[in-house]
Amino acid sequence: MSGRRGARDDPPEARMSSSETSPSLSPTLELAMELMQRPSVTPDDQGCQALMIERLSRLGFDIEPLPFGDVENFWAVHGHHGPVLAFAGHTDVVPSGPEAHWEYPPFEPRIDDQGMLCGRGAADMKGSLAAMLTAVERFVTAHPDHSGRIAFLVTSDEEGPAVDGTRAVVEHLREAHERLDYCIVGEPSSTHHLGDTIKNGRRGSLGGVLHVHGIQGHVAYPHLARNPIHQIAPALDALVREHWDAGNDFFPATSFQVSNLRAGTGATNVIPGEVQATFNFRYSTQVTHQALRERTEAILAAHGLDFHVDWTLNGEPFLTAEGELVDATLASVEDVMSRRPTLSTSGGTSDGRFIASLGSQVVELGPRNDTIHKVDERIRAADLDDLSRIYEAVLERLFTHDAQQA
Amino acid sequence: MSGRRGARDDPPEARMSSSETSPSLSPTLELAMELMQRPSVTPDDQGCQALMIERLSRLGFDIEPLPFGDVENFWAVHGHHGPVLAFAGHTDVVPSGPEAHWEYPPFEPRIDDQGMLCGRGAADMKGSLAAMLTAVERFVTAHPDHSGRIAFLVTSDEEGPAVDGTRAVVEHLREAHERLDYCIVGEPSSTHHLGDTIKNGRRGSLGGVLHVHGIQGHVAYPHLARNPIHQIAPALDALVREHWDAGNDFFPATSFQVSNLRAGTGATNVIPGEVQATFNFRYSTQVTHQALRERTEAILAAHGLDFHVDWTLNGEPFLTAEGELVDATLASVEDVMSRRPTLSTSGGTSDGRFIASLGSQVVELGPRNDTIHKVDERIRAADLDDLSRIYEAVLERLFTHDAQQA
Repeated sequence: MSGRRGARDDPPEARMSSSETSPSLSPTLELAMELMQRPSVTPDDQGCQALMIERLSRLGFDIEPLPFGDVENFWAVHGHHGPVLAFAGHTDVVPSGPEAHWEYPPFEPRIDDQGMLCGRGAADMKGSLAAMLTAVERFVTAHPDHSGRIAFLVTSDEEGPAVDGTRAVVEHLREAHERLDYCIVGEPSSTHHLGDTIKNGRRGSLGGVLHVHGIQGHVAYPHLARNPIHQIAPALDALVREHWDAGNDFFPATSFQVSNLRAGTGATNVIPGEVQATFNFRYSTQVTHQALRERTEAILAAHGLDFHVDWTLNGEPFLTAEGELVDATLASVEDVMSRRPTLSTSGGTSDGRFIASLGSQVVELGPRNDTIHKVDERIRAADLDDLSRIYEAVLERLFTHDAQQA
Repeated sequence: MSGRRGARDDPPEARMSSSETSPSLSPTLELAMELMQRPSVTPDDQGCQALMIERLSRLGFDIEPLPFGDVENFWAVHGHHGPVLAFAGHTDVVPSGPEAHWEYPPFEPRIDDQGMLCGRGAADMKGSLAAMLTAVERFVTAHPDHSGRIAFLVTSDEEGPAVDGTRAVVEHLREAHERLDYCIVGEPSSTHHLGDTIKNGRRGSLGGVLHVHGIQGHVAYPHLARNPIHQIAPALDALVREHWDAGNDFFPATSFQVSNLRAGTGATNVIPGEVQATFNFRYSTQVTHQALRERTEAILAAHGLDFHVDWTLNGEPFLTAEGELVDATLASVEDVMSRRPTLSTSGGTSDGRFIASLGSQVVELGPRNDTIHKVDERIRAADLDDLSRIYEAVLERLFTHDAQQA
């Protein structure tokens, strides 16, 4: 504990100058930039995982490469007994878009004169991967006989179809009866300051494409047609006005949004034969996807529509309401940042939903997310060193005998 | 009158065999097929008008060619005093579509063994043009000193943009202070039997494209967005439920139909920034297009929408509720067909709307319309001879001294 606290009391410059491989960069920043130089757009890993594997092997981890399809993944474990804490993340990044729109080339990482680490993947999430790895390096070096087991679950397909990535690795772990008690996902969870927000769950996402069938005809002869646009309008209004639930302590109320509407051939004198509406539920743990489907179809049927819905369950909600992991993570952030984080379940889906299906406690903790998926992705460079110390503090709280007795 | 009645009492075979130019075809059918051989897809007249002009010149008509843009039109008049009765029509036809789908080549007209005249333009409306021309030939030959003036208003752009066709000719006539008291448009008005329906007006057509502006966002963060699909749904429902008018003796109630809806990029996680709805009013003479616009925009405003509408007035309604032309046409159909026609204002717009703007009495009378614009366009061949006799009977009722005294 004293090492961590001591490090935090040092000014950033002092920490940087203590780096063993560069006079100006901490090991965390150096590794982050090594990873960011690799243009690992989904699912092309570009050697990022090999770099991590090499460092973890040197530390004594057992490595299990788990490629599925064209996606590279690996599972790595250190230790032989007790509960498993996995650090989970992805080496793939979203495309940069036109490089000319960037202030600096997206795959030439640098720290600018504002102290910002700039480049694709800085926030989402090569910075987190580097912070996890250096945290584990320091912890294992300091505590070679730590209790519990430390694992890494790394994929190169979080930003893409997400089928052959964490989902497939989790199925492999399930079949192999691997234990996974705690998981920290490195998704950028912070809003204004590092560690101000920890995600301890995510809403579910249920999609649907509603097809309402009418009878095509000429606008001059509406009595010979049945206009599905006219029929869908009050039904959509009813779905929008429906009170699906009130949410709960951890989730906002379930929301219903229509994202796309399509009807008509473009001809202005033809009543179309069909209208399509694409919609999405973001739902809390107060409802199930089965209930949402049934209630939606009941409302549509009550409007007398000739319809069908193609449903897609994108992700069920998950929640780690409480437990050792949440307690350790909250306390570790408070130790390092002198600030109590907020627990949140907002935002889109993440790979956490797959891992939670194993019965694990799952939290997401990473850097600020205000520039993710945008041009000029960047984070405060010093935040990565603090993030690494937070991850290390969680390990100390969970896996050192002193900490467990405390 | 006796000549017309005598002709009607003859069986069709006898009438065909009396043709002066062919042992098997009446002059009307012969001319119809001569016109139908010319593939005069809008606006390419392919010599159809030259053929008509040659026949009308021989009969003593004064011809005024009125080309506008790439559209051929002509105006022709016979007689020097009194009211003007114009026969109006178009030599252009809609495309045939794939010829392989036709039973017979669309521009090789023939009478099949069912007695059907087959080919593009048979019903819409080279058959009517031929019937008008032979009716006028017989009438002028029999009544060289007829009262009134007989005119032809012929265009090659009724099926296309309809800008440089009848509309332009009518503007020319307006500027030249030409008189146009009565107009018979040869549009195929009949439903089940020749002459069962005469159109004495048409509904107006007012189109609009409604743009509702929202605020784009992510479906996971609806509080940061404003979904225009959600906003338009109750507004569309209100427009659909609105009672615009009750129609009147000649017009059904004004109808509102949405033909196209567009919103969203295709992405299922984006709340769109705008939705577009294309709609159309078919409206009676009980409302005006100005009133419809004002009432529509008031309903949209009452729903709190941020919107604008791009309006297109396709045609104002017209109506010839009564008068000499309607009376003469009804009586002439009854004379020839022994059947009382129905007056109707149903269907789409026609060039009648432009002519009616001159203050003319306008009716539309032509063959059955069940195959127009389709493959295998066809009509009963014998109907064209009856149609020619009906047109001739109208001339006799309006422009012979005996008839006017009767």
